[in-house]
Amino acid sequence: MKLEIYDSTLREGEQSATVSFSKRDKIKIIKALDTLGVSYIEAGMVTLPEDLEFFGDISRMELKNARPVAFGATIRPGEDAQSSPSLSLLASVPCDTVCVFGKSWDYQVSKVLSTTKDENLRMIADSISYLRSKGKTVFFDAEHFFDGYSDDARYAMSVLETARDAGAERIILCDTNGGMLPDIIGMATAAVTERFGKCVGIHCHNDLGMAEACTVSAVLSGAVQVQGTVSGIGERCGNANLNTLIPILQLKLGFECIGEKLSSLTSCARYINETANRIFDEREPFVGGYAFTHKAGMHIDGVMKSPRTFEHVSPESVGNLRNIVISSLSGRSAMADKMAGILPHLDRKSPEVTKALNAVREKEALGYSYEDAEGSLALVIKDALGLRKNFFDLVHFKVMTDEDALTDAGNQAIDAMRSTAMIKVSVDGKEKLSAAEGNGPVNAMDRALRQVLSAFYPVIDKMKLTDFKVRVSSGGATASVVRVVIESTDGRSVWRTVGVSPDIINASWQALRDSVEYMLDMSES
Amino acid sequence: MKLEIYDSTLREGEQSATVSFSKRDKIKIIKALDTLGVSYIEAGMVTLPEDLEFFGDISRMELKNARPVAFGATIRPGEDAQSSPSLSLLASVPCDTVCVFGKSWDYQVSKVLSTTKDENLRMIADSISYLRSKGKTVFFDAEHFFDGYSDDARYAMSVLETARDAGAERIILCDTNGGMLPDIIGMATAAVTERFGKCVGIHCHNDLGMAEACTVSAVLSGAVQVQGTVSGIGERCGNANLNTLIPILQLKLGFECIGEKLSSLTSCARYINETANRIFDEREPFVGGYAFTHKAGMHIDGVMKSPRTFEHVSPESVGNLRNIVISSLSGRSAMADKMAGILPHLDRKSPEVTKALNAVREKEALGYSYEDAEGSLALVIKDALGLRKNFFDLVHFKVMTDEDALTDAGNQAIDAMRSTAMIKVSVDGKEKLSAAEGNGPVNAMDRALRQVLSAFYPVIDKMKLTDFKVRVSSGGATASVVRVVIESTDGRSVWRTVGVSPDIINASWQALRDSVEYMLDMSES
Repeated sequence: MKLEIYDSTLREGEQSATVSFSKRDKIKIIKALDTLGVSYIEAGMVTLPEDLEFFGDISRMELKNARPVAFGATIRPGEDAQSSPSLSLLASVPCDTVCVFGKSWDYQVSKVLSTTKDENLRMIADSISYLRSKGKTVFFDAEHFFDGYSDDARYAMSVLETARDAGAERIILCDTNGGMLPDIIGMATAAVTERFGKCVGIHCHNDLGMAEACTVSAVLSGAVQVQGTVSGIGERCGNANLNTLIPILQLKLGFECIGEKLSSLTSCARYINETANRIFDEREPFVGGYAFTHKAGMHIDGVMKSPRTFEHVSPESVGNLRNIVISSLSGRSAMADKMAGILPHLDRKSPEVTKALNAVREKEALGYSYEDAEGSLALVIKDALGLRKNFFDLVHFKVMTDEDALTDAGNQAIDAMRSTAMIKVSVDGKEKLSAAEGNGPVNAMDRALRQVLSAFYPVIDKMKLTDFKVRVSSGGATASVVRVVIESTDGRSVWRTVGVSPDIINASWQALRDSVEYMLDMSES
Repeated sequence: MKLEIYDSTLREGEQSATVSFSKRDKIKIIKALDTLGVSYIEAGMVTLPEDLEFFGDISRMELKNARPVAFGATIRPGEDAQSSPSLSLLASVPCDTVCVFGKSWDYQVSKVLSTTKDENLRMIADSISYLRSKGKTVFFDAEHFFDGYSDDARYAMSVLETARDAGAERIILCDTNGGMLPDIIGMATAAVTERFGKCVGIHCHNDLGMAEACTVSAVLSGAVQVQGTVSGIGERCGNANLNTLIPILQLKLGFECIGEKLSSLTSCARYINETANRIFDEREPFVGGYAFTHKAGMHIDGVMKSPRTFEHVSPESVGNLRNIVISSLSGRSAMADKMAGILPHLDRKSPEVTKALNAVREKEALGYSYEDAEGSLALVIKDALGLRKNFFDLVHFKVMTDEDALTDAGNQAIDAMRSTAMIKVSVDGKEKLSAAEGNGPVNAMDRALRQVLSAFYPVIDKMKLTDFKVRVSSGGATASVVRVVIESTDGRSVWRTVGVSPDIINASWQALRDSVEYMLDMSES
């Protein structure tokens, strides 16, 4: 059976405390979701004339799979649909489908709208009829439906009936406060689908950490439309996470959602999080970097014998990868496996494996970790085995940031600081000094280091930094430990390196240095 | 009915790819969990003689509520419990309760253990009987129980029966791969509790994002022990999150878990995440900073009229706080409310509210956001109203990091860099210069700034930094935008300030400067 996947990242997602999208971000996200194959994309609320322009841009995008949806409110108490400026704005949006929300909980009707239950029904009927008369396909979001159903089921049902009779094509049951358990969602949805048939959608929030379980419960009770957001981005604890729901519905329960596009789920999820300028939660089911990452020695042994022993689906099915973490917990077999590229023919009992594990343990005790820094890990292992090459010696190092031509002293922030790095290295007895300015000290160091080394190693010109992450120990103040991870590429492969220090400059330097050394090491072998 | 809460943060949590605990961390976490009132604390695996020492330390802690549990494996194929070194180590641990794990999925028995189903039963029976003969209370973790139950229910049940007959006090059903849906967990658990009664525990993983829903399903089917970890820390996508489960079980379903200690849940969760040196997920249900945070204008209006309209439980019940986010989405009423401390008697239509909202919008367009920086927000609002005081002018600013006495050039990381900051300010025409060294440039700037200002404003000596967070835009390299949030305290109150720039030094400076200005502003009013 085919389910409709309805993405609300651009509307609900933007209600998240930490997310806001530019118009360009939104266009990128719409393209990515369309390629992934979702059925509907709720592209935003329509409250201002410029929102119409934006929907005009979308209408020229020639989407292949998805239909854009404009979101808006029903009219207010006492208002008439014909003369409501906000509703006529919504009716004039250049897209076929609109979704309007209304109250289905009597408590909200009296407390928030301060009106009668009958007037609320009239507002819903009038709004939907008007939008239908303007040729729109109308979805109705029944806000707080499950609270309403618990308090006064008869009234909640009459709201749905009103919307349906007025011409709504989908009635969407919303757990707006996110406080409902899956069993209750399932039972209430079953009552609705029994009465209204195959026109029901489900929209859950994550305040109990159960938005996906609640959604699945509703689908098993007959809901045909699944609303959610990428990575569950949304108000408070977030919304139902489509990255999780799509593979569950398709792989575990046999519903048709996005077909073979499932194998691009991981890359799409990462791309949209990046566009949203959001730190990706690597623990996310299916698409997270840790979803198929094994650390405990026994788990690693099991997965090596047969993936099914510790993986409930294959990482490939959702476009993800298996990952074996090297740490003091991961054990000898995993380390031997990881070392195969450096020294083949090792087994778990080889003394080289012991040496490498001990070296990793020592570094871990200093605050290093290598689960996302395979470049530095390779260097640590080579170092332990006496195989690390010395590409250069550092002779002198200095980095400065200053601003001494202030014209706007006072309450203004400093807009133009200047960072400069000087680095002097020695290669085979030849010394060379270089200096570079940069947008901040790390940028300056990066430029100076590559500049001074490219005279000796021209291959370095192919390399560039692609990401820079800083993790500060949550315990302390500015004197606490900083962990810097740098991602680099030479156009073909990508590698990450790590530095740890109480000093962010020092930590960044270590990661930069490892990055360059790892690149030189690769290019020689 | 009383449920046993069994915390495994120190064992399962440490299998998370990004977490490792020192012995001192572990002791702190055990104290916090005991104070919170959990029933059992799985303090770690016992595989080495030094693990016994650690359990010795725990036994001297005089815990008030919780019992420590030592974790270990059953014996291997062909092994005899009497002569197993690892089992005798576990038997000699100085704590009453031990938990041993064994296979309950025939596929694992043949694939991973490479033995027969009967031998697996013998291993389990022999291990448990031996531990019982040494006076231990024994819990049995039935690894992969639900996979086993789906493949060969009869064998899975015979594993449980064997464990029970050998003297296990609890049999714990584990969804080790985390691939099971709540309904299946509920049905299988019901079959087990019907047969074995009130001795069943539940242990779920989060690979479907449903660890908590699965756990609740098992409890509703008669499980009496709930296993999980703080914030769901664990292998891959994590384990069942006790921060979420405890309030659901206690507030929503009426089970007795930790009684009135529930109101310290939020602070305990934060403390343990801090101890684990882990970035706290502010979207966490119940305990997250965003769990009761409202951003959309309509939600804010609703909550102001009646909290129940958009909150499914009260924030106070779990020791959390309501938070209204000021952004361009939050609307005029919320801003007027936020401004009450600066200018009382404003309402949503006041022109001052418009000015302040516009100022916030302009800053947001530059990448600032104020949801976790109320100190900077207050300054932006005052600035917009022309009420911001000028406490000092910056005349000169310079910060340097260098290392020019390298003895260990070559492959070694630089251990000792030196950061120095020089700051010259002018207050009422009087200039003063100060310089300070620090552990990194931000630390040096912080010291120099407070030093130079304390001559003019002695109150500054009471202030110190308590946290420093860096968020790098995930899109770019070292030239991308950095957002720095600094948390400060004067011993009585805590405030946070923000800086944004492509340059980390500049962003840190803005946040530092705001922090000091906010403090001076407070101390004058």
